[in-house]
Formats: sequence, C-alpha cells, structure tokens
Amino acid sequence: MIQFQCDYNEGAHPLIMERLLGTNMEQTVGYGEDPYCEEARRLVRQACGCSGADVHFLVGGTQANTTVIAHLLRPYQGVLAAVSGHINVHETGAIESTGHKVLALPTGDGKITAAQIEEAMLAHLHEDGPEHMVQPGMVYLSFPTEIGTIYSHAELRGIREVCDRYSLPLFVDGARLGYGLCSPECDITLPELARLVDVFYIGGTKVGALFGEAVVIVGEALKRDFRYSIKQHGGMLAKGRLLGLQFSTLFADNLYFAVSRQAVDEAMRIKSALQAKGIAFLIDSPTNQQFPIFNKEQLAALSDDFLFSVWQQVDEEHTAVRICTSWATKRENVDRLIAAIGRMP
Amino acid sequence: MIQFQCDYNEGAHPLIMERLLGTNMEQTVGYGEDPYCEEARRLVRQACGCSGADVHFLVGGTQANTTVIAHLLRPYQGVLAAVSGHINVHETGAIESTGHKVLALPTGDGKITAAQIEEAMLAHLHEDGPEHMVQPGMVYLSFPTEIGTIYSHAELRGIREVCDRYSLPLFVDGARLGYGLCSPECDITLPELARLVDVFYIGGTKVGALFGEAVVIVGEALKRDFRYSIKQHGGMLAKGRLLGLQFSTLFADNLYFAVSRQAVDEAMRIKSALQAKGIAFLIDSPTNQQFPIFNKEQLAALSDDFLFSVWQQVDEEHTAVRICTSWATKRENVDRLIAAIGRMP
Amino acid sequence: MIQFQCDYNEGAHPLIMERLLGTNMEQTVGYGEDPYCEEARRLVRQACGCSGADVHFLVGGTQANTTVIAHLLRPYQGVLAAVSGHINVHETGAIESTGHKVLALPTGDGKITAAQIEEAMLAHLHEDGPEHMVQPGMVYLSFPTEIGTIYSHAELRGIREVCDRYSLPLFVDGARLGYGLCSPECDITLPELARLVDVFYIGGTKVGALFGEAVVIVGEALKRDFRYSIKQHGGMLAKGRLLGLQFSTLFADNLYFAVSRQAVDEAMRIKSALQAKGIAFLIDSPTNQQFPIFNKEQLAALSDDFLFSVWQQVDEEHTAVRICTSWATKRENVDRLIAAIGRMP
Amino acid sequence: MIQFQCDYNEGAHPLIMERLLGTNMEQTVGYGEDPYCEEARRLVRQACGCSGADVHFLVGGTQANTTVIAHLLRPYQGVLAAVSGHINVHETGAIESTGHKVLALPTGDGKITAAQIEEAMLAHLHEDGPEHMVQPGMVYLSFPTEIGTIYSHAELRGIREVCDRYSLPLFVDGARLGYGLCSPECDITLPELARLVDVFYIGGTKVGALFGEAVVIVGEALKRDFRYSIKQHGGMLAKGRLLGLQFSTLFADNLYFAVSRQAVDEAMRIKSALQAKGIAFLIDSPTNQQFPIFNKEQLAALSDDFLFSVWQQVDEEHTAVRICTSWATKRENVDRLIAAIGRMP
Repeated sequence: MIQFQCDYNEGAHPLIMERLLGTNMEQTVGYGEDPYCEEARRLVRQACGCSGADVHFLVGGTQANTTVIAHLLRPYQGVLAAVSGHINVHETGAIESTGHKVLALPTGDGKITAAQIEEAMLAHLHEDGPEHMVQPGMVYLSFPTEIGTIYSHAELRGIREVCDRYSLPLFVDGARLGYGLCSPECDITLPELARLVDVFYIGGTKVGALFGEAVVIVGEALKRDFRYSIKQHGGMLAKGRLLGLQFSTLFADNLYFAVSRQAVDEAMRIKSALQAKGIAFLIDSPTNQQFPIFNKEQLAALSDDFLFSVWQQVDEEHTAVRICTSWATKRENVDRLIAAIGRMP
Repeated sequence: MIQFQCDYNEGAHPLIMERLLGTNMEQTVGYGEDPYCEEARRLVRQACGCSGADVHFLVGGTQANTTVIAHLLRPYQGVLAAVSGHINVHETGAIESTGHKVLALPTGDGKITAAQIEEAMLAHLHEDGPEHMVQPGMVYLSFPTEIGTIYSHAELRGIREVCDRYSLPLFVDGARLGYGLCSPECDITLPELARLVDVFYIGGTKVGALFGEAVVIVGEALKRDFRYSIKQHGGMLAKGRLLGLQFSTLFADNLYFAVSRQAVDEAMRIKSALQAKGIAFLIDSPTNQQFPIFNKEQLAALSDDFLFSVWQQVDEEHTAVRICTSWATKRENVDRLIAAIGRMP
Repeated sequence: MIQFQCDYNEGAHPLIMERLLGTNMEQTVGYGEDPYCEEARRLVRQACGCSGADVHFLVGGTQANTTVIAHLLRPYQGVLAAVSGHINVHETGAIESTGHKVLALPTGDGKITAAQIEEAMLAHLHEDGPEHMVQPGMVYLSFPTEIGTIYSHAELRGIREVCDRYSLPLFVDGARLGYGLCSPECDITLPELARLVDVFYIGGTKVGALFGEAVVIVGEALKRDFRYSIKQHGGMLAKGRLLGLQFSTLFADNLYFAVSRQAVDEAMRIKSALQAKGIAFLIDSPTNQQFPIFNKEQLAALSDDFLFSVWQQVDEEHTAVRICTSWATKRENVDRLIAAIGRMP
Repeated sequence: MIQFQCDYNEGAHPLIMERLLGTNMEQTVGYGEDPYCEEARRLVRQACGCSGADVHFLVGGTQANTTVIAHLLRPYQGVLAAVSGHINVHETGAIESTGHKVLALPTGDGKITAAQIEEAMLAHLHEDGPEHMVQPGMVYLSFPTEIGTIYSHAELRGIREVCDRYSLPLFVDGARLGYGLCSPECDITLPELARLVDVFYIGGTKVGALFGEAVVIVGEALKRDFRYSIKQHGGMLAKGRLLGLQFSTLFADNLYFAVSRQAVDEAMRIKSALQAKGIAFLIDSPTNQQFPIFNKEQLAALSDDFLFSVWQQVDEEHTAVRICTSWATKRENVDRLIAAIGRMP
C-alpha cells in the first residue's frame, strides 16, 4: 500500500538524519540553550527577515497552538478562529483546557475574513453588557488552512488592519507553512507574512523534520516570559539540540522551501490528473492537500493500492477524500497514482 | 418608568423578607448546615417527589451551571447545549474557564432535540480518531429556554432515552423553572421532570427569592463530594440560613408555583394584547418572556413609559424586544402596558 | 447554647435589614449598575481616601480572592502567601482551580514579612533556569490574619517597598478588615492602608452585612475588564442593589467602624478575663478572634453553654479553641462567658 | 569541558539511532498506532510482567506527569507529593495549571512515607468541614527521587497498603527508573514495582532514548479514555513510530537495564573516589546522581575541566553539587574525573 493519507507518514529529510547521527554523542546543555538552537534561531530570523523576533522550538502543533494562545489571552478572553480551525476541531479541547473559548466563525473555504473579525468585535462592543460574554482577545488562522486553501497578501493585510483597529494580536498556525508559501498561487513571502502577524509558527513535523515547530514571536508585547509558558505546557524538550539541529538544517540553503515546492509540485500533478479525469473537488486547493470527490467504484478501484483519509461523506454515492503529498513523496508513487486515476471507472 | 426588561428588578416576596427579618438575630451554623436549610431540603425533595435526592443551595445561576458541569465532566469532555444556551453565550466563558468546551448545537426555538444529541454522539464515535476531538460528556438544556419556549414531556422523554443509550448525564438549567412549569402549555410536572433528569436546579433569583438556586441531584453517581465543588467555585454562602429560609418559604404552601402562575398569567395578558394589535413575535413563547417585534414608531411610543431589553435587530425597520413579567409584576402596570399597546401606531 | 464559634452566625445589622425591606419592591437595573451601588462606591472611595479607585461588590470571600488573583496573574505565575493564609488552606484549592500555585511562606503568627518576599524573589531570580519554576507574580496577605494578628504600618510599608522593587502587586484580604482597623493595637488607617496596596477588599459578611465584600482596586493597571472576571467567576449578583445598599449603609455615618469597634471591645473583655484566669493563648491577638488554650476540664466546663471552634490540639491535655465576637455579639452573652470563665476549674 | 551536570546531554543509544535511520522512509500511520508502538507495548508489558497493562508513549516527563495527574484527579482533589518532588518544584506549576493543588509533604531524603500519607488523610477526614480543603486524591512519588534515593520494597508495600486503605491511586514518576532499579541497593524488580502501583512511567529521555516516556497504566479504573488526555495535553506525537521504535529497542534484549547498570556502576566509582578523598555528601545516593559537598578550592579545581550542576549552597564555604552519569557516560571521562578528585586540595 502506498500511503497518501497524511503528510507525516515518514521520518525526516535524510540531511537531518545525517546530522542527528553525526552529533549524537556531543554533549550539549538542554532546554533549547545549545549552539544548534542558537544557529537555528539565527537562520529562522534571517529567513523571516525579522532580526528582532524571538524564536522558540516546540515539539508539536497542538502544543504550539495551546502555548501561544494561553500565553496571549487574559482569562476572560477567547480566540477568534474558523469553525474548521484545527484548534476548534482536532485538539481535544486543548484551548478550552486552558480556560479559553474558541469563538468560531463560519467558513466554507477554511478561511476567515477581515469583515467577519470586525463584525465579531462590533457585536461584542455593542452588547448591552459585554462583560457577560467572552471578549474576543486574538485572531487565529491557519496558513494554509486545514483544507489546503491559502490567504492572499491582500486578505492578510485586511485582517491585519482590523486587528490593529481592535488591538487584537494575530496568530498564524503554520503547521504546513511551506506548502502554502510554495504554492503556485501564493502571492506572499515569508518576510511579508512575518511583518503582518504578531506570532506564527513554522511547521517542521509535516515539512521535512522528524518533529518540531518553530514559534516566531514578532510582537514585542508577547515575548515576555514565553519560556515559562513552554515549560508549563510540557513543551520544553530536554534535548533541545534535536530541535535546533533540525531547523538549522531546514533553514540552511533553503531546504525548507525546496522540499515544500517539490511536495506541492507532486500535488499539482495529481490534481491535474484528477481534473483530466473530470473529478470534482470539495474545494479548489493550491497546496499539498487535495480533496477529490470519488464515487464508490472509483474509491474502491484506488483503495487496492493506495491509502487516503476519508474526509467527508458528500452524498449516498460520493465521498470526499484527502490525498496528501509531502517532502517525502516519491515521484514514482505519484506516477503510479496518476496511472491508477487514469484507469478508474 | 415601569420596568419589564428582566425578571430580577425587585427584591423578594414579602413573606421571605418577613422571615429574614424575623430570624435575623438567630445564631445558626454556617455553610448550609443549619435547620432552615434542612427544612428547605425536605420541602424541595417533597415537591420533586424524590426523597433520595441531594439538594444544595447556591447563590446564582452562573455559579450553579459552572459547579454542576465542572463536577460532572472528565477533563477532556464537553457539554452538549443549544447554541443559544445561557452557558454558551452569557456567562463570559465560565464553563470554558473550568477547562471544558461547550459543544453548541444549532437551534431556532432555543431547544435541542434527541435526534441532535444522537447525531452528535454518532459523529463522535464514528470519527477515525475520536480522541482528537472533545468527547461529549453530558447534555445541558434550559427549561424554559432563554427565549421562553418549553420542552414537552415527550421531547424530554426522547432526550432521556438518548442520554441513557450513550450514558450521558442530563442537566436542566431551571433558572426560570417555575415560569415553565406554570405555563398553560406545559404538560409535565416537577416530579415528572425530576424523574427524567440526573441533575437540575430550581431558580429562586428570578422566581420570588432575593437570590438563590436549589441544585437537585437525582443521579446517585453525581452526588459524591458535591460540597467540595460548591466551595471551590465560591458558591458556599457563609450564612446558609439565608438560602434555606428563602427556599423553605417558597416551597411551603406552594408559594413557588403560585407566584410563577401569576407571572405567566400577566405575560399571557400582554401576549394577547400584542396579538390583538397584530404584532408579530420572534418566537411563540408560552412563558413569562415575550419577544414581540416592533417597528420604530411602535418602539418609540412605548419607550416613554416602559423599559424593555432590546433583543435583536430583525431588519432595518424592526426590532425584537424582550418583555418580562415576574412574581413581582403589578397588575396595574400590566394594565398600563396593555393600554399603551392599544394606543401604539 | 451561646455561639462564639465564628463571626457569621447572625444575619445583618438592623439598619441594613430595614433598608432592604424599605426598598424591596423598587425596580432597579441589575449587576451592580443601580444607584445604590453607585452611592456605595462613592462612600467606600471616600472612606478609603482614594477617589480614583474602582470599587466592585462581590458576594463572598472565596469569590473575591479567586477573582482578584486570577485576574492579576499571568498563567505561569503564582501568589506568595502565608502557609496559613485562607487561600492556601480553606478554599478547596480555588486558586489552583484557576491554574495558579499558592507559593506558601512559613509563618508562626499568620503574617509574612518583607524579608521573606524578597528572599522568595531572589531565590527565583537566581535559579539557573527560573522558567522551570513558578514565577512569583503577586503578594497576598490577610488583615487581620486568620489567627487575629495585624500588621503594623511599618511592616506594611516594608512589604510595599519590596513589592515595588520587584513589581509585585500587593493584595490584602480584608474579610475581617474592620476588626483589624479597630483594634487598639492598630496603627494604620483605612486611607493609609489603601495607599499601600494595589487591591484589597473590605469584608462585609463578617462585619455587619448579610453578605458581601467590597473589592477596591487602587492600581491603575489592574482595573481593566475586572467586571468580565467577576462574571466569569460567578460573582456578579443579579440583584446588585442588595450589595450596594448594604455597603452604602455600612459606610454612611461610620457604621462599619462603630460595629467593628464594639466587637473588638467585647473580644478584649473576654481576653482580659482569660488572662486574669491565667489562661495561655496560642497567639496574642488584638482583634475579634481569640485563641485560648484550655485543658480538658476547662473545655468541658465551658462547653455546656457555649459553642467554640476547636482550632488545634496543642498536646494530649490541651486544646486551642477559637472564640469570636462580631458586630452581633450581645454584651450580656459576653458577661455570661466571662462569668463562666471565672468559674472554670 | 566534560559534562556531568545532567543525564540528558547526549542523544540516544547508537542502536536506536541505527534503527531510526533504517526505518526513516517507511510509511506508518501516526499517533502511536503503528507496528513499532505495538511491538514496544508488547515488550514493555512483558518486562513489567503485567500483560493487561495499557502502555502509552509520551515525549517528556512534565507531559507525562501532568497528563496522568489531570486524568486521575477529580476537580477538587490534589496530589500528595514530597515537597522536593519534581511536580512541586520544577515544572512551572504544570499541575496547578490543570487546576490541582500539589499537597506537599516534608522530606529530608526526597522520599515520603506511608505514615505521612496516612496522617494527611486522617487530618483531612477529621476536619470539621473537610469540603473547605483540597481532598487528597492520589499519591505521587519518584523512583529514584530527585536526589537519587530509592524506596525499599518494604517502604513501597507500606505505601501501597495506605493507598488501598484510603482508595488513593499510586503514581510513580520513573524518569530515571532504570537508574533506580539497577542500583546495588535496590531490592525490588520492575514486575514487583508494577504490581504495587496504579500507574507509573518508564523514563527514556534520561536512559538511552532521544526522548520519550512509557506510561504504564495498571489500574483498570484509570485506563478509560487516556488517549483523549494525551492529545489534549499536546503529548500525542504525530510520528508515533519514533517512540515505539525507541522503546522496542530499549526493551529488546534488556538494553534498558544494561545501559542503566553501566551508568550506576560509573556513579559508584565516582562515589568511591569521593569517599576515599573524605568528601561529605548532601545525601547518600545509591543511583546515578551524586551530591558531594565541595569547598571553594575543591570546586574551583574541578571546574576547569568538568561541568556540574550547583545544587545547593550549604554554608559560606561549602556547596553541594550534582554529578550525574548516564547511559552515555564514557569510562575514560570518569577515569579523568576520578583522577582530578584525587588531585583536589
């Protein structure tokens, strides 16, 4: 079985494994204060074009989201997010477990809009007794979203503007950031993104690393004491070297972007094959996740050799599945999938 | 200005004030262990027809909701509730502050259905990795709802059945319980209600008391250590006598039902007057809260002498307002309101 | 049985009951925004000599402590307090339930010192990795303490100075504030106290009110959005008038101080009688709580007619009990107790 | 500089690195449901002699402690632990952040006793109003303790007995479990330990793995829904294979015990050298952590070539330091340290 069901099936990019092996018996201090983390921080700052940012390395995405959000909000505040946002759906209430409501905004394409944020703020402020309701305290969005779509530069500027107007910190979940930035439809660069947000993270787990997310704090007010929050939420890896070394590898020589681009290229090849076959999509995604809608025969035909995630039952006859590529996707496996798509009923 | 904007504008029923005054200098032990609380517990159990129930007195509704829900749920569980439920909207995230997600179900009439609960459970259980999502751990509903509607006996039996099937405790918020049970359209009695739920509370604040809610725990499994939870959530009134005395007064000689019935009667008179005038309603409510939709001229005409809550902007021209009666509503004030309605443009 | 076991056995001062009765059927808006609360806020500010303070009325002490502390601290911070502090012992972990550690400091007399606070801060800052430990984020102390002792003006100034040096907000639990300020040994006034702290509360429950604590926020930075925290913690009483009216009564004509002084006077009479009899004390308390140590015969002799709290087993033969007076203590009952003390073996 | 300051300076045992490399491009499902985790679970159960235990793999110790404790306790309960316990000192209030108090028991040697636990339970139960205090809900102990001491089989049986008497689950933090079990003074085996506890974890991070802790749940009542808690606390590693593979390597062919024994052997060689030199110790530790007390000259002499943790200032002249060995400690480095100790002033 060839697996396309997610983007974390394999281990890490060979260069990372090589460096892990090469440094395995070196003695370093713990908790992210070793030279590899220092180097990684330098490279990440450079890639983001913000020399003043604080960079922290955490193990996983739920941890990163929870730590950032719990660190930012005051106790009676909640976080504005798409109803389909990862924090609202797939983190077992991690945000709520820290005392905060996810203020879910409706969405069809996984994105939220500046207008929605403004509307939420106005609705809150115009309440007769606003203190009876959760105060919106920040904005969370995913880039790309959980269903593969991406925000345009203009959309993000619009959101930034509203955030400024209402003093809302803007947090971007970049678990798949590389696959968004390297999409052919993306019109924003990493430094441009970094300038528009208060805090975001660069996903490693799904983009070449064994594990690890680089939290980049741009907003001055949010930097204070962040390491306390990391530790409290169980996110401070004893052997910080493992994280530093992975990110320093990914951000030396643009490896992060190279592997991201390759994954998106393979996804686009699959997308084209599906389109050529006349297959409809749940959503038009320009990134590494594709959501074709198959009928039962098609699904059965492909399921002999390939593994997908069932995403959503569309109707009695049709199912939307998720097909993911990643940094580890082999071209020959994509070739086989394309051939199988061609042979589908 | 005559106030109809809520059902907690005045103090307490004169009989309660009289007894508070009469016992003021008596010395009693604190924290709900005095003879007045004992007597009140006995009377409440009797009114509910469940001699084995545990009865606790708390000061307010947010406290009661938070204490019960935090006591029942395991850390990774959430509470199923109508999107318009008080806990989801008007308690500043109190439930989330204890670590739990409110799993909001859509509703038009303020009620949730057995089918919705079952669907939520099936959706959760059929998830590929259910542990990535919040587990539904109990059901919350309001009787009457926040917009004045009530569940029929059959609807509640249906919900009970689903709750049994999925081992979900059922909790009823009865902040306005009297106004529901004494509605002309209500087909369920207090003992019948008590038999269908695991825990509920009988609202005093809005129904004749100065303040106070009587939490009635029917389900054996939920009783253990509840006083710890009351204390932890700041709900254990030092001078418990104040609560015991109020509830023993309300539940002696059926006072609770007498004052409730009177409030609903007055609301029905207002409703008839509005219907006679051809006014539309946001919802057809058979209880003490009425939600007529006025145009600008009508609203202006009434606003000279009467105070309402603005509930919802319906369109450019029309506004839904809330008109509340209560145990304290004076017949002559209702007469004046009816006359003014008759004179409206 | 005459009860001396606590200072919340009775109801409220007759003047309060009278006003509650007199205003019972008035219609007021809820949640602390009525004219009685406004008046009470004005009077409390005046009594505190700080016209710029924010004043909020909450129902009880646990609620007040939890709301203030959860509002002030950042998630990874804890509160420095005496190991015997009410928040560390008798609130069922309410502070921890909001996510914060109580950083307990040892004490013999119920008080903490400026030196202890400084030592705790230095120990934290000199840690190799301070982010692995809870950061001290504020100071909590009780005035008077849980065992009746009081801080001198000089002691409080010393604590203030350390708090300033380390940017620690200072919070004073004044559940029995009147009994401290009216002690013959007290050398600080309410306005002087208010100038030294960031936030404190004036206890009503134990000092003349039916219930209620007035939280006074002096520090500008702590004022923002406090009503959200009150509501979230279930502390926003629907019928705010009840609280406003009680505090406006207590702070008109110095009633609060008059009733406090009387209670302390009676306690001093009891203390003298005990001293005359040669009874030892657990601690030398100049306020309304006295902690004499009785042998078994003495305890038995008094227990026929009087109720005390057993405080602590001192040794096989001796028990320290708590004897409380309050605003409601009758002179004739104290006379009887004194006579009984005289007759003790 | 040769580092002895902690037991997590290096990476992982070469066999682990080799297997990570060998399986790097295999495709496996995520979240601990891959064949490597299955195999590791089987081997861990076998090593523990409890075929019915649930085994879960988490990334780090703070995560493991927080997840287990938050999963076990009811909201108003706390965890009994040594005042020097890791959860009470070095986890930035992670336990409190989930709402629970750490009920700290005094200790000189890092251990708590059955008598202390019983005393805490009796004190709680004999309280006049126990619901005003945090209810002890479980027992936490570390094996070995944070200062290297270990419990005897008899001590643990005694604790188990008290836990049974008061229905307290017993949780053992085994971050350094191997170094305890392989101590020459240890009289208990892993299966014997597993039979005495309800839940414990086997530390990998400090004992041969890159990272990872294996939580073993023995008590039937504690098993339900544990994966929800792992996910909520951010502890569910996407690429579960990494953990499964590490633990299957450590528990095949007794590698875990082999590397542990070697580390303890080296620690004993250092201990003997220190004893031969007449150096006193803060505590007599039979495991991989040693706490010698050096004077200034001695400390200076060793600090040129070796890195230790400063543990505690003993007096003006003397400092206790921590010297750790681990699975990675090289014999030649210990030889050099021993030589240097011999040359100390």
